[in-house]
Amino acid sequence: MNKHIAAYGEIMMRLTVPDNMLLRQADTLNYSFTGTGVNVTGLLSQFGYQTSLISSVPDNSIGTTSISAIRRLGINSDYILKRHNNLGMYFLEEGYGNRPSNVTYTNRKESSFNTVELSQYKIDNILEDIDVLHICGISLAMNEMMRQNILELVKAAKQNNVLVVFDCNFRPSLWGDNGNEKAKPYYETILQEADIVLMNEKDAIYTLGIGSDKETKEEQLEEVLPIVSKKYNIPIIAGTKRIIKDNSHNVLKGYLFKNNKIYYSKNYEVTILDRIGTGDAYTCGIIHGELSDMKPQEIVEFSTASCSFAHTISGDTPLFSADDIIKVMSNEINDIER
Amino acid sequence: MNKHIAAYGEIMMRLTVPDNMLLRQADTLNYSFTGTGVNVTGLLSQFGYQTSLISSVPDNSIGTTSISAIRRLGINSDYILKRHNNLGMYFLEEGYGNRPSNVTYTNRKESSFNTVELSQYKIDNILEDIDVLHICGISLAMNEMMRQNILELVKAAKQNNVLVVFDCNFRPSLWGDNGNEKAKPYYETILQEADIVLMNEKDAIYTLGIGSDKETKEEQLEEVLPIVSKKYNIPIIAGTKRIIKDNSHNVLKGYLFKNNKIYYSKNYEVTILDRIGTGDAYTCGIIHGELSDMKPQEIVEFSTASCSFAHTISGDTPLFSADDIIKVMSNEINDIER
Amino acid sequence: MNKHIAAYGEIMMRLTVPDNMLLRQADTLNYSFTGTGVNVTGLLSQFGYQTSLISSVPDNSIGTTSISAIRRLGINSDYILKRHNNLGMYFLEEGYGNRPSNVTYTNRKESSFNTVELSQYKIDNILEDIDVLHICGISLAMNEMMRQNILELVKAAKQNNVLVVFDCNFRPSLWGDNGNEKAKPYYETILQEADIVLMNEKDAIYTLGIGSDKETKEEQLEEVLPIVSKKYNIPIIAGTKRIIKDNSHNVLKGYLFKNNKIYYSKNYEVTILDRIGTGDAYTCGIIHGELSDMKPQEIVEFSTASCSFAHTISGDTPLFSADDIIKVMSNEINDIER
Amino acid sequence: MNKHIAAYGEIMMRLTVPDNMLLRQADTLNYSFTGTGVNVTGLLSQFGYQTSLISSVPDNSIGTTSISAIRRLGINSDYILKRHNNLGMYFLEEGYGNRPSNVTYTNRKESSFNTVELSQYKIDNILEDIDVLHICGISLAMNEMMRQNILELVKAAKQNNVLVVFDCNFRPSLWGDNGNEKAKPYYETILQEADIVLMNEKDAIYTLGIGSDKETKEEQLEEVLPIVSKKYNIPIIAGTKRIIKDNSHNVLKGYLFKNNKIYYSKNYEVTILDRIGTGDAYTCGIIHGELSDMKPQEIVEFSTASCSFAHTISGDTPLFSADDIIKVMSNEINDIER
Amino acid sequence: MNKHIAAYGEIMMRLTVPDNMLLRQADTLNYSFTGTGVNVTGLLSQFGYQTSLISSVPDNSIGTTSISAIRRLGINSDYILKRHNNLGMYFLEEGYGNRPSNVTYTNRKESSFNTVELSQYKIDNILEDIDVLHICGISLAMNEMMRQNILELVKAAKQNNVLVVFDCNFRPSLWGDNGNEKAKPYYETILQEADIVLMNEKDAIYTLGIGSDKETKEEQLEEVLPIVSKKYNIPIIAGTKRIIKDNSHNVLKGYLFKNNKIYYSKNYEVTILDRIGTGDAYTCGIIHGELSDMKPQEIVEFSTASCSFAHTISGDTPLFSADDIIKVMSNEINDIER
Amino acid sequence: MNKHIAAYGEIMMRLTVPDNMLLRQADTLNYSFTGTGVNVTGLLSQFGYQTSLISSVPDNSIGTTSISAIRRLGINSDYILKRHNNLGMYFLEEGYGNRPSNVTYTNRKESSFNTVELSQYKIDNILEDIDVLHICGISLAMNEMMRQNILELVKAAKQNNVLVVFDCNFRPSLWGDNGNEKAKPYYETILQEADIVLMNEKDAIYTLGIGSDKETKEEQLEEVLPIVSKKYNIPIIAGTKRIIKDNSHNVLKGYLFKNNKIYYSKNYEVTILDRIGTGDAYTCGIIHGELSDMKPQEIVEFSTASCSFAHTISGDTPLFSADDIIKVMSNEINDIER
Repeated sequence: MNKHIAAYGEIMMRLTVPDNMLLRQADTLNYSFTGTGVNVTGLLSQFGYQTSLISSVPDNSIGTTSISAIRRLGINSDYILKRHNNLGMYFLEEGYGNRPSNVTYTNRKESSFNTVELSQYKIDNILEDIDVLHICGISLAMNEMMRQNILELVKAAKQNNVLVVFDCNFRPSLWGDNGNEKAKPYYETILQEADIVLMNEKDAIYTLGIGSDKETKEEQLEEVLPIVSKKYNIPIIAGTKRIIKDNSHNVLKGYLFKNNKIYYSKNYEVTILDRIGTGDAYTCGIIHGELSDMKPQEIVEFSTASCSFAHTISGDTPLFSADDIIKVMSNEINDIER
Repeated sequence: MNKHIAAYGEIMMRLTVPDNMLLRQADTLNYSFTGTGVNVTGLLSQFGYQTSLISSVPDNSIGTTSISAIRRLGINSDYILKRHNNLGMYFLEEGYGNRPSNVTYTNRKESSFNTVELSQYKIDNILEDIDVLHICGISLAMNEMMRQNILELVKAAKQNNVLVVFDCNFRPSLWGDNGNEKAKPYYETILQEADIVLMNEKDAIYTLGIGSDKETKEEQLEEVLPIVSKKYNIPIIAGTKRIIKDNSHNVLKGYLFKNNKIYYSKNYEVTILDRIGTGDAYTCGIIHGELSDMKPQEIVEFSTASCSFAHTISGDTPLFSADDIIKVMSNEINDIER
Repeated sequence: MNKHIAAYGEIMMRLTVPDNMLLRQADTLNYSFTGTGVNVTGLLSQFGYQTSLISSVPDNSIGTTSISAIRRLGINSDYILKRHNNLGMYFLEEGYGNRPSNVTYTNRKESSFNTVELSQYKIDNILEDIDVLHICGISLAMNEMMRQNILELVKAAKQNNVLVVFDCNFRPSLWGDNGNEKAKPYYETILQEADIVLMNEKDAIYTLGIGSDKETKEEQLEEVLPIVSKKYNIPIIAGTKRIIKDNSHNVLKGYLFKNNKIYYSKNYEVTILDRIGTGDAYTCGIIHGELSDMKPQEIVEFSTASCSFAHTISGDTPLFSADDIIKVMSNEINDIER
Repeated sequence: MNKHIAAYGEIMMRLTVPDNMLLRQADTLNYSFTGTGVNVTGLLSQFGYQTSLISSVPDNSIGTTSISAIRRLGINSDYILKRHNNLGMYFLEEGYGNRPSNVTYTNRKESSFNTVELSQYKIDNILEDIDVLHICGISLAMNEMMRQNILELVKAAKQNNVLVVFDCNFRPSLWGDNGNEKAKPYYETILQEADIVLMNEKDAIYTLGIGSDKETKEEQLEEVLPIVSKKYNIPIIAGTKRIIKDNSHNVLKGYLFKNNKIYYSKNYEVTILDRIGTGDAYTCGIIHGELSDMKPQEIVEFSTASCSFAHTISGDTPLFSADDIIKVMSNEINDIER
Repeated sequence: MNKHIAAYGEIMMRLTVPDNMLLRQADTLNYSFTGTGVNVTGLLSQFGYQTSLISSVPDNSIGTTSISAIRRLGINSDYILKRHNNLGMYFLEEGYGNRPSNVTYTNRKESSFNTVELSQYKIDNILEDIDVLHICGISLAMNEMMRQNILELVKAAKQNNVLVVFDCNFRPSLWGDNGNEKAKPYYETILQEADIVLMNEKDAIYTLGIGSDKETKEEQLEEVLPIVSKKYNIPIIAGTKRIIKDNSHNVLKGYLFKNNKIYYSKNYEVTILDRIGTGDAYTCGIIHGELSDMKPQEIVEFSTASCSFAHTISGDTPLFSADDIIKVMSNEINDIER
Repeated sequence: MNKHIAAYGEIMMRLTVPDNMLLRQADTLNYSFTGTGVNVTGLLSQFGYQTSLISSVPDNSIGTTSISAIRRLGINSDYILKRHNNLGMYFLEEGYGNRPSNVTYTNRKESSFNTVELSQYKIDNILEDIDVLHICGISLAMNEMMRQNILELVKAAKQNNVLVVFDCNFRPSLWGDNGNEKAKPYYETILQEADIVLMNEKDAIYTLGIGSDKETKEEQLEEVLPIVSKKYNIPIIAGTKRIIKDNSHNVLKGYLFKNNKIYYSKNYEVTILDRIGTGDAYTCGIIHGELSDMKPQEIVEFSTASCSFAHTISGDTPLFSADDIIKVMSNEINDIER
């Protein structure tokens, strides 16, 4: 378990209104530091891997605090730069029952991470140190410089025989009009380099333009994933299907396409303490499954259990061990552990 | 949407024990300012109306704080007097599962609002400014002066062509022995002036003495509402039926009697964050529905959705927009909004 | 209701991580003082009994605080000694959904209570004052001195015609290897003196070695309880059966063996605010039922309702009156009480 | 040290705005239970005395909570009745620098304590149990029934050879116009029965009408105390002089008139954490000094040190031992105690 | 006192780390809404004036919350627009002893207020409603559009006979290199229109380039203020001199130049609870003094007392009445007010 | 600045009662992780050094949390073991004015760190990695195994040319009767190996038995330090002198003996936010001064300023940069930094 996994990703400050209140009702906020890359490397460090974040934070007390927070999660901070003045932030008003959670972003596009060129990182040295690189599609939506940063980084990673994990994470609101069209060439380039891809049927149909006349999500997946895998030469594609009963109860089912076959997990009913970041726990399951040579069915089961358990942890970043997940997979719910 | 809606009602301080604890377990309290009139005008101001409260608070730091709180909710404070030393208060121990919430009042009958004569307000000027007046039946239970204040105010309102909304809100514990008998003449006088009345079958049967030999709540409503409407000449009567599964889960169904016909909403399952004040969100739905010329079925659906959504907001006073309610009516439950 | 009930038991400090967080996520803890004896005497004092704790706490500010806390619960502190420096503590990370609660103990075996010989208490005087003595089996697992303390105390109690209530509470993790074997002689001696015993089928089968070839819990109980009762001459044996749906929802059923017959309560569905200490509310129900001459079926119903209601109270120690339980037994769930 | 000291006094709820904020800025309150009698018996219980409160609280969850709080302080609650619905409350906005603290009362005159006749307490039994009775002059300002309660109680105490301690505590705002005149006859009657009186020069000059043409507080005391002591036959009169530098720094000097001589303490500079209730710590010093046969100079020094130390304890009720005070008297300020 | 005073100014969110901690130590923040214009209109509303803010906030839940907060302070929100997505924010780590407070801004230049053209406000209507307009020099440092907004607004105000109050508030860090040079023409234009100017000797010497060879602050003021007043035709110039003993104790002295004469207040020693925004309390004193026809010496005394008292109030915005200030001026420090 | 500094020391959990309350008044605690070694390596990591802790924590959630906390401070956790079940803890009731802070320890001697033999650490590898080793004398008081651990470690360090820093930190209460006598041989052995020693005159006189007939602390230091330095061959001895005005105000003066000469800093007046751990900030100053080749007078000034500034930081562990200290040394106190 001495693999070294790094994520190139933004650190954001999450400012959560306590006790399910609205921002206009409260006067305190709980803050933590998060982001897809933070969540993935944070959880993988619990699984026993060496992990690092390749990122940039402002050179002020907010930046210092974010680095402390990353280190507290067990992530190595050696590749983090301190540049400029801004960190991306979001305010979270947590939903309840039939009231959805509400996220309000501050001006994220001017953040330190999104305004630093790749050349400022010592990428060559970093790629020599690491075994796996995680990339998140949200960053592609930021600006042209970020898109070039990522394309360049992915290519360099492949040349260094670093395993590339790509989470599509297409966010329509960030790309604006004709977003799928704008995004397609970048996504296609990255997919061709990626070894593990997190993708759902909408990514395939809308962003990549793979047609489907099926109706259910599962039928669509079964139609498009083989095509995507073949076209872009992707060994592993995975994702989850979520049924929302209300903002406190969801049902999850994971899927994994590998060796030209699709595997499904059983259904997991989840009682939700904190919804955000749970997808990243799924990604970690896939990475850990692959690196530890689990069989496909075991991987998809482990990953969905990981995603399911992440709903019971406060904050974006999942905090538990692989052993905790195995208990969940066994479907036994235990009384107090003492 | 430039209608001006005022409520004549008491501002109370709510002191809530945090984290579902009992008063004897805790040492902090969360406080806010509330009351039927506060809740109704507070939510209607979110719907876009100009709203005001006609009330009186003590001339000390508690009174100043209550006015700040009212203004924070978007309510106009120009008609609020500062008199005497006391504000009504209640302590709330929030229930859980099969433990009901417990409310403990302090000596409310000596509050500023309940000891100020109507003549101290500039009622003539106020009635010229406003379009709708909301009155709550709880105030009738306070003392004879308050009963006279209300009768006088309702008559003056009608003379000024102000629409009168009356919420029966009969509280047996406040009226004491033979409460229905004592209350009846006052209720009858007000009902004759009211344009919109919030009433349930018990108000009709016990307070007004309209006999019914039906057994279910719906049958009783269908028997007594036409009689009440005709006898007191009330164009619109509305209310809700609530099934209590436990203190966290209820089922709601609204009803509206108009044009000699009763309309029902569909059933709404609610997961409860805060139960108190949700009835006032129903009232707001009725008022907004009438003022914006919705059809009866749409009004009862909108009002019940409003009531349902109010259960997911912390505190007595509902805080959401008409658009939020329309999303709830559509029955779609959304994932995080970002 | 002037019976005086004392428990010989440890006071522990419970340090709870707030808001369902993990210890590593938080920076504040809520603390309270608890223990089986505390919970039992605390609740019985709400039922109207005079209650006392026979215990020892450190002679420092932690000890002083624990005594204040005991008194706050209505328990008499006259029999509590101040000796040595340590109080047993446990950290509680409260579970959520499919994540179980996690308890971490500090070095409890060196606590004041577990290192004070019985001779330091004025046992003769105490036994003259009291009518009922409660003993908890957890203390037997601590060390040999504690085992001797308990055996000696139980014998003295019987000589003084004090009713002895014994809660088996066998904790395998505290006894270590061959725990049942080690524990058996102590348990057998105490059972012979006890008037009321809290015991489940595992205690009978594994600790006492009463064989059973039945499969379900109920069948096993029905087989072993008559044998145990007869062998050790125990008038009353009682306990609960718990089905864990998830960490927020359980189903409870109580049983009571008396007069050579087993009585069951109906099933109680519980929504859990705080799981710990709820078994002690069951014990209190049995004690109160016996002391107030309820019939067996009524006792088991009352006790299970008490246990059920205890799940809705924050903290280990149940806080409610016998009247509150009677409302729960009636199965009516009430709206706000005001 | 087995003397039993009881106070006849009101329990009030103190609701403190946290962090030196104004009520209008905050949304939480810290609450505790206090009153002159609570403070005096609470501190004397730390000194090792048996103490009780003779009082009445409402028969609801506020009353139950107040009794728990009293017990937590080490005070016996056996003489406390549960009657009516109200408890006196005050809101405290703590001052800072040149901003004074602000106290806002709710309707205290309708409180349980102030509306219960003395005949409802089992006074005869109580007076047999106790050695010292503490009475506070604030209660005299409440209503005629309270004045009669106190006169009657003081007389009965003397007949039972109970030592009577009377704290004048004249509050002009509560007596209204011609307050001194109205109060005089009641004060005079009580003074004739009292053994220890807490009084300042204003009480003597304005309430009792003892003329003085001196200018400084000390000169006035030296003139009037001998007269008062002689006229009303009071063995011991004591009090403090306070110089207010700002709301965080005061200077204190205690005085004690005994055996026809006035004794002064040295000056104590105090840094203030919580100002309220510090006078009651002075009273406790006097009572403890008398009961433990200290010499007059020692008593006044001990009492002023006690008063001084009370300024460093959060909340109204002083919490420390006689040993802590002796360290303060020695004027050594210690570094961390570990 | 029916004058209507408006400020054209930015609303910022202040995020304060609690309990004097550093951001990296904590996990909660207290938030409030502030800004020079907010503070000035907020305090003037306590003095009894009608006040409004001319501003723009984002059209999301942060914007809604900021408007609620403004209304809570008693300020009219009718002139506030909802545009774009960002609100200026700053994080505050409060200093202690010899550690200074530390302010970290987020990207303020992209805030709603700083990116909305003046033409979007209904300036003509607003200027008809108001009597006094307050402008803050910080806004001049934002961007060229803001500078044009202000110049245009000031001219329009003068044409409408609105009294213009200008607070120089030159912030070198915001103007960058050659800041004084860049700022000078804008400051000169505004000064020619202003009726009341808040200015210190550095503004005159460095920004306006008025030479002085004096050494002490007072000598420099006495040299440059007459020149500035004459050159730009400014009737009233005022400000404060602050001596910093440590971050908890300052000494203040106010000055006022009027009728060709300089007036000084006495020295005020302040114990600091919250330093930020205290200068705005000085401004309010000057405005109120002028509008209520105080004499110059009285104005400068009142204003400095106002500034001094503001240091004892938590948060940026001062909250007290003119009567509170008059008590401070009298130099009496009172014990608890009850 | 690439030196690697490690401390062999215990991690303790500090549980602080908030808001200057006593444990018996509160119900929440703030917790953090601390210890001499933690504080020293934590602050040196802010100064830019690579730092590590050589320690052992329990293999449970408390241990995991303590490692997270260490990493959050910037300290490397690679040398930390997870063994056994206990972590040393202390409860802190913070003093105020003339009330001293009170520390209550739990059973520390059974902690993980104090029960793990040195052989379990990979000491050979560690000593190859590091340049400086910090040892604290408190650990010597724990048990014989710990004393052997330290002696062995110090010798191995010298053999690896690692600079040894030894803080005497003699705690009489931990050594018990004849503590100085018992401790002397261990202290003497370590002093002979140490390069930098933190020591005061009492260590020299009482533990080492160096006689002195001087009276003032400074005279004693000047007499004994040359003797100690010569006898044990210690190049550098340093410490501080503290005058306690009250628990909020101290005066500090540092001293440094080097090259046979004693250097004193100027006096620093400190306003205290948190007293604990400030001595460790002095140690860091000495280490940093030596490693960065400052002159002796500069070292003692820098170190005392560091110690002084540490009093303004909440928690045990100082958090600031070398630049912050240089500002303090310049004696300028700045207004808000923004």
